[in-house]
Amino acid sequence: MTAFSAQLPATVPVTVGDRCCFGGTDLVVIGGPCSVESAAMVLDTALSVAASGARMLRGGAFKPRTSPHTFQGMGDPALDLLAQAGERAGLPVVTEVTDPRHVDRVAGVADMLQVGARNMQNYALLAEVGRSGKPVLLKRGLAATLKEFLLAAEHIRVAGNDAVVLCERGIRTFETASRFTLDVTAVPVLKAESHLPVIVDPSHAGGRAPLVAPLARAAIAAGADGLIVEVHPEPATAQSDAEQSLTFAAFAELMVQVERVALAVGRTIGAAPLAVGASV
Amino acid sequence: MTAFSAQLPATVPVTVGDRCCFGGTDLVVIGGPCSVESAAMVLDTALSVAASGARMLRGGAFKPRTSPHTFQGMGDPALDLLAQAGERAGLPVVTEVTDPRHVDRVAGVADMLQVGARNMQNYALLAEVGRSGKPVLLKRGLAATLKEFLLAAEHIRVAGNDAVVLCERGIRTFETASRFTLDVTAVPVLKAESHLPVIVDPSHAGGRAPLVAPLARAAIAAGADGLIVEVHPEPATAQSDAEQSLTFAAFAELMVQVERVALAVGRTIGAAPLAVGASV
Amino acid sequence: MTAFSAQLPATVPVTVGDRCCFGGTDLVVIGGPCSVESAAMVLDTALSVAASGARMLRGGAFKPRTSPHTFQGMGDPALDLLAQAGERAGLPVVTEVTDPRHVDRVAGVADMLQVGARNMQNYALLAEVGRSGKPVLLKRGLAATLKEFLLAAEHIRVAGNDAVVLCERGIRTFETASRFTLDVTAVPVLKAESHLPVIVDPSHAGGRAPLVAPLARAAIAAGADGLIVEVHPEPATAQSDAEQSLTFAAFAELMVQVERVALAVGRTIGAAPLAVGASV
Amino acid sequence: MTAFSAQLPATVPVTVGDRCCFGGTDLVVIGGPCSVESAAMVLDTALSVAASGARMLRGGAFKPRTSPHTFQGMGDPALDLLAQAGERAGLPVVTEVTDPRHVDRVAGVADMLQVGARNMQNYALLAEVGRSGKPVLLKRGLAATLKEFLLAAEHIRVAGNDAVVLCERGIRTFETASRFTLDVTAVPVLKAESHLPVIVDPSHAGGRAPLVAPLARAAIAAGADGLIVEVHPEPATAQSDAEQSLTFAAFAELMVQVERVALAVGRTIGAAPLAVGASV
Repeated sequence: MTAFSAQLPATVPVTVGDRCCFGGTDLVVIGGPCSVESAAMVLDTALSVAASGARMLRGGAFKPRTSPHTFQGMGDPALDLLAQAGERAGLPVVTEVTDPRHVDRVAGVADMLQVGARNMQNYALLAEVGRSGKPVLLKRGLAATLKEFLLAAEHIRVAGNDAVVLCERGIRTFETASRFTLDVTAVPVLKAESHLPVIVDPSHAGGRAPLVAPLARAAIAAGADGLIVEVHPEPATAQSDAEQSLTFAAFAELMVQVERVALAVGRTIGAAPLAVGASV
Repeated sequence: MTAFSAQLPATVPVTVGDRCCFGGTDLVVIGGPCSVESAAMVLDTALSVAASGARMLRGGAFKPRTSPHTFQGMGDPALDLLAQAGERAGLPVVTEVTDPRHVDRVAGVADMLQVGARNMQNYALLAEVGRSGKPVLLKRGLAATLKEFLLAAEHIRVAGNDAVVLCERGIRTFETASRFTLDVTAVPVLKAESHLPVIVDPSHAGGRAPLVAPLARAAIAAGADGLIVEVHPEPATAQSDAEQSLTFAAFAELMVQVERVALAVGRTIGAAPLAVGASV
Repeated sequence: MTAFSAQLPATVPVTVGDRCCFGGTDLVVIGGPCSVESAAMVLDTALSVAASGARMLRGGAFKPRTSPHTFQGMGDPALDLLAQAGERAGLPVVTEVTDPRHVDRVAGVADMLQVGARNMQNYALLAEVGRSGKPVLLKRGLAATLKEFLLAAEHIRVAGNDAVVLCERGIRTFETASRFTLDVTAVPVLKAESHLPVIVDPSHAGGRAPLVAPLARAAIAAGADGLIVEVHPEPATAQSDAEQSLTFAAFAELMVQVERVALAVGRTIGAAPLAVGASV
Repeated sequence: MTAFSAQLPATVPVTVGDRCCFGGTDLVVIGGPCSVESAAMVLDTALSVAASGARMLRGGAFKPRTSPHTFQGMGDPALDLLAQAGERAGLPVVTEVTDPRHVDRVAGVADMLQVGARNMQNYALLAEVGRSGKPVLLKRGLAATLKEFLLAAEHIRVAGNDAVVLCERGIRTFETASRFTLDVTAVPVLKAESHLPVIVDPSHAGGRAPLVAPLARAAIAAGADGLIVEVHPEPATAQSDAEQSLTFAAFAELMVQVERVALAVGRTIGAAPLAVGASV
């Protein structure tokens, strides 16, 4: 971590399904609700984010929640709803897995497995997603150094899985004006120190809808390979993360802004979806 | 968390075996190696810490390690060695469990289950130790607020288990002179905000042997109900946490110092072990 | 700070000299050496950064240094060298003032006074620069909340000076891969909460030359009104901040990259310098 | 800072007046109001804390306040009131100085000069108090590493003044249950790394009156050479720091508790005040 290579190592792309490739010239934006709340809401969201240029659908089935007394997700039924919505919208899906005993079941439905910030050092889970054969979206722990983050990815790799995408989602600092502090510096450092694609979650980092677009633009400008963004048909009624979810219109506007910045740094977004592998 | 009650709620003691009671007048000091490395080393350590006044034996079988390339613990065999050593020394044993699928097995051998800092928000694991019926030692996550720490304990409680002992073990800050920053303030805050006993781990907090005794004294002076301390027959050769492990002699000296501070704050240590329940 | 206005308050531009205006459509990039080391080096740097599109020259005369045993700056002579270089290059100059007793002297030479991170809550100094009549570049303290940062600006305002430009320069966190952690979220928050222009210092935030360009791009993408960047004719020989200083070539390349991002977010850079006031 | 000496360097005591000696066997507790608000309140407080065993009187005349719109202290008149109260109570006085231009004036009245946390890296001020010939109480900046803290003391020393007492007063972390996070580990680290006496400010660290006593006990148990505590005749009406100020009765009770812990670690408190120099 001490020596910063002027020469970046080439990122080795990670492919999900046949339309999604993290780490190439084309950026991948993942959109979707924090939690799957009903068939209708996840389908509506999937169709809307796809129309705006998202390449993957996110949605929580098993929600790790700080308090045991808040909504914990719909569980298994949500997995099927998510997969159906993804199929209808033509988007592969990513969802969080929180228990090593659920990995097989989730991997049977999802195209990519997410390990959340709370579980970045849950080594039993890392080993199991490593054995799953599915690509993994690994989020940074909120007090993890970048060195520890890369070592967590190494736990997945030694279990047999090289298809890991890193996700910076804000770290915990003294500042309270945002939910967490987006460590945008993590993007160039991780790109320089590893071969793994790096995306950013501006929704959790900022914690408030008006901050999502500026943080998303900053992430792409710093060299991120994509974004994961929370979108909800009616954010005010969301059962989790209401404050940070974007409306469909705000997500569409975000995509326009992000594309402009992407072009400014030599990247594309939503270009040539069917031939994405070729653009790498 | 905003209102600090001048009137402390009475701590409800948590009993482990028939000799150990956390949260009474008598303090509980847990001693033992970071990792169980052999039958001889854990037995020697158990006998030595017992002779110095420790009330419980600690020892790692399954070690969560930041890098997958370092010693991960001996696993199952270590559990038996730990239990045998505890029995010979007359000490109940506590060991960490890191995988919900291991809880039954570990609970079959250990008197108390430890959930480590990395897993404080591993809710699958919290639910499983909650169902185990065994008392739980829950360590604070290194970026967890005290509110989040108490909510993690609540995850165990809603699974059916009230026997939780909280352990402050240092938080992550900008300071690098110690491994972590002991948040000694956590002790009075947690005692005021909950009914759970609170102990402190000065070994991980400080990260260097010469810091263990001052931090242990500070913890007891602030009102902690006990300590958990790493002790090794020959720290320089330890396979993990070598720098912070105490020699037998240093642990014996620590106990003398801690007892003096305990008496100064109206507590005892190692007093009347057989009738400890009565002193509460 | 709790309510985030969807509707940004209009930034009230701050003008320095007749060519520089912070907070308009056109961005302001300040370039120059950490310390003025000789007449030749500061003039060379001034001419080079001006040719690359910088609008203002920076350079330290009085350097606040953590250790009293390192280079403290050339003091008074450096002020004159800086001013002469600025005049030759057609750039107004900004330099740090650290002592309230120096304010008159520095204000007699510099076009803008910088208050550094260490002095963000040095209220005697804030009052004095407030009385100086010169525009002030106020850097955020490395553990200052955004609320405290805005209140520090208020100390300058109540002393009679509204011409304050805020500068985010990285905060102190647990992460050690970069010198500080750039809080890029500060940009949209400060723009939403105040009328003051906001610039970013990617050099101190990252602390290493290869990080400067990605952080600079991120800052502009997030909505910053400008940048302050350390540039040195021969960074390896710099008497302070050698690791984070850019060569002339690297600065020129930075400006190209920054301009592209600026255009992507509806800003210009280096456009129409003589009529900049008109573009606001 | 990397090597922790098992062998502590002997602390070189710092003497203030003829009754106060920091760094000997006997501890020094400083008590008094945050701000001097009237002649009566400071005299009452001085007499009360002296009767309870305090050895020095504190009181603010020039208050550095985060907002320019809150009470900034009475200024010069407060200095005289503080000195008169100290004299009547037989206590030397310490007060904060925030402006290098005030040092001579404050040094003419106070027995010890305090440099506050906000000014720990205000090098112009450090140089001036270094030249003053008065002992200095230097508070740790809220994001200062211990290495930076010792280098700030070095700025005073190179200006000609070795009589520096270090004060740990809490650092800024993510935790919000207390005002700051007392870094109690700083006490043994600073004692090991320097010859300077080290005291602790539990009032600012905790920020709430019920936390002051536990933190004070922890500090002494960890090896601190003294305490500085905010006391007010009627805390609820205090013009600053109301929440963290102790009543006279609470301070008296604190002293009883602190003395017990002091004896447990081989220290005394309030013993043999007239011959304190001899006990070192």
